[in-house]
Amino acid sequence: MIPPSARPLPAIAQRAQRLRTSAIHDLLQLANRADVVSLAGGLPDAASFPADALREASDRVLREQSHAALQYGPTEGIAPLRAWVAAHLRAQGMDFTPDQVLITSGSQQGLDLLGKVLIDPGSRVVVERPSYLGALQAFTLYAPEFVGIEADVSGPLPEALAAALPGARMAYLQPRFSNPAGRSIAPERADALAALLRAADAWLVEDDPYGELWFGAPPAPGLIARGVPQGVHLGTFSKMLAPGLRLGWVAGPQGLIDKLVQAKQAADLHTASFNQMLVAEVLRAGVIERGLPVLRRIYRERRDAMLSALDANMPEGIAWTKPDGGLFVWVTLPPQLDAAALLPQAIARGVAYVPGETFNVGAPARNTLRLSYSTVDAPTIRGAVARLAALIHETMRHEPALRSA
Amino acid sequence: MIPPSARPLPAIAQRAQRLRTSAIHDLLQLANRADVVSLAGGLPDAASFPADALREASDRVLREQSHAALQYGPTEGIAPLRAWVAAHLRAQGMDFTPDQVLITSGSQQGLDLLGKVLIDPGSRVVVERPSYLGALQAFTLYAPEFVGIEADVSGPLPEALAAALPGARMAYLQPRFSNPAGRSIAPERADALAALLRAADAWLVEDDPYGELWFGAPPAPGLIARGVPQGVHLGTFSKMLAPGLRLGWVAGPQGLIDKLVQAKQAADLHTASFNQMLVAEVLRAGVIERGLPVLRRIYRERRDAMLSALDANMPEGIAWTKPDGGLFVWVTLPPQLDAAALLPQAIARGVAYVPGETFNVGAPARNTLRLSYSTVDAPTIRGAVARLAALIHETMRHEPALRSA
Repeated sequence: MIPPSARPLPAIAQRAQRLRTSAIHDLLQLANRADVVSLAGGLPDAASFPADALREASDRVLREQSHAALQYGPTEGIAPLRAWVAAHLRAQGMDFTPDQVLITSGSQQGLDLLGKVLIDPGSRVVVERPSYLGALQAFTLYAPEFVGIEADVSGPLPEALAAALPGARMAYLQPRFSNPAGRSIAPERADALAALLRAADAWLVEDDPYGELWFGAPPAPGLIARGVPQGVHLGTFSKMLAPGLRLGWVAGPQGLIDKLVQAKQAADLHTASFNQMLVAEVLRAGVIERGLPVLRRIYRERRDAMLSALDANMPEGIAWTKPDGGLFVWVTLPPQLDAAALLPQAIARGVAYVPGETFNVGAPARNTLRLSYSTVDAPTIRGAVARLAALIHETMRHEPALRSA
Repeated sequence: MIPPSARPLPAIAQRAQRLRTSAIHDLLQLANRADVVSLAGGLPDAASFPADALREASDRVLREQSHAALQYGPTEGIAPLRAWVAAHLRAQGMDFTPDQVLITSGSQQGLDLLGKVLIDPGSRVVVERPSYLGALQAFTLYAPEFVGIEADVSGPLPEALAAALPGARMAYLQPRFSNPAGRSIAPERADALAALLRAADAWLVEDDPYGELWFGAPPAPGLIARGVPQGVHLGTFSKMLAPGLRLGWVAGPQGLIDKLVQAKQAADLHTASFNQMLVAEVLRAGVIERGLPVLRRIYRERRDAMLSALDANMPEGIAWTKPDGGLFVWVTLPPQLDAAALLPQAIARGVAYVPGETFNVGAPARNTLRLSYSTVDAPTIRGAVARLAALIHETMRHEPALRSA
């Protein structure tokens, strides 16, 4: 007789076959090794978290409102936080009422709920190349047919979007300081893309985690602000405040928000009341307004260090984006180089990045990689970029295909 | 030309058609009216939340470990919390390692992740009658074929489980102080059910939110502790500590946990680091050990008040469960009475409950309702039960079908 514990387990769902350990997940492990400078993660700078303000807010909330903070709460989120988000979006030209805001457990949950409510198996979902990996992962579970559209420095190409939209269920875009490309959609391009979407029978999901992290001037409004009535906006407190609180939001047309609220109730009942009240408290105290200029200065200094190190060290034939905000630089190697194949050697030299392949649907893009400057100080960035550039230089010299190219 | 805002919105997914505003959701709104005594909600008693201990823990965590508490964290959960859960389950006869524990955003998220990973459209899912509404809601989105099995005071009937298991993907049970029935599976019955499941090619999902809230002696172990190797355990800190922190767990076979971790990464990256560290801190300080005897005493006193009020006031022909723990009493009216139809009159008399129909798959059970004694003090419970009993009494006298029955 076979002992019960040696028997195979029962079957799992077909959609779970599509789940794999992700590159992000494995690389976040890697990033913890003390001898590796990680330019891989996209973590915010922990030294900038407003720990003291949160400590004071926590003390006050648990003294004065502990019953509400520790009890079950409304699925939609608490009223002061929804009102703050609606006002924040109105200031950026988006006309959402507090009732049209759903508080989520990070904006990753917004992506999952949107996948659940909008995507049927085989639904066409239009994404830019490259696109945010967490969105691709969340949507993949609902078995869409992804269509990747090409982009240039001004953003996704209007003719590519126009070709992809007929029959599509949804387009997913990060218009400002995108992850992974560090790219923003230029104003005239945004007008053209918004006009195409406005005329289409597809949802626009506009994801804006980094919009407040600008280095020069505030960025131009996204697409929803240019008039896309079926536009759904995703945002997060992770980059303005701290990701460990897991607080984000979705704003959209009321009928969709009502469905998302019902999906969220089945998914986790509601986002932690305590965390929502903490953040409502620090928002009231102006912590974000005081913190954002500091964050912008820190990330701008690191962006500068990375761009000048790339300029100083990278050989001919390498291109990269010059982000005006956010946390990422996107590097394009000569077409014969494979960034994933190069990664173990880079790690051996003490520098980690994310190969770009994983961010792309459609045609391969093996010669791309993502660098983040968010968690490392300027001198360390300069050293790591110099080592990475040396490795790429040597590889190019030893690859006959590259020499003859 | 039609203005864009007047155009219909794009299509949503078929599964989202199955989403409706739930009875729980609407009734939680109802429960907030000051002139209604709500025996409807299943909220824990807010006065028992350990607010001071959490305030001290929050202060310490944000002084000493703010970077970790406010940064992104591991999808699986933080190590000290996973270790605590594994030890807690071992003490109840369940052999799970910390690696086999996934920390979730409340146990509701465990239900959603299990639905996502285990249920294909049409998968047969076996549930007891009545069953936890949140589980039915979470699973429904994945389009299973539910099979409801009958139960008596000792728990689900073995012959009903035996008939339902062939070809089933999963059985979902609450063996101890179940919601809504306030029912526990008797030890011999549990042995018989565990033997059937052990021999079956179906997952067992054992949900135990109330196991620590016992009134006489600790309850007998559940089914997994009797040897069901494909058993998956769900638990929560919501009833031992506070639901507003949204912390629960899933423990199960390693291969399944690995899939659930991947599904959770796509769903919300991870559960709030800060909340996990707070709870790890109060666990270390012994807050749960000190708090549980107090909770047991409070709920036992309220259970006693409800049972004696039912005894003293309910007319002949009404039956109810006598829970040895947990938060709920399940009432069965004469078959001709409809608890949902009666609810507006009950509310007019200042008492709310949940009609039982919503908790049942399969044959209707309109003559049932759920009462909770968790949030109301003993004198208020006595008054509310007396008013409800009077309404039922009057209704029975005026219903000819009932008089002749």
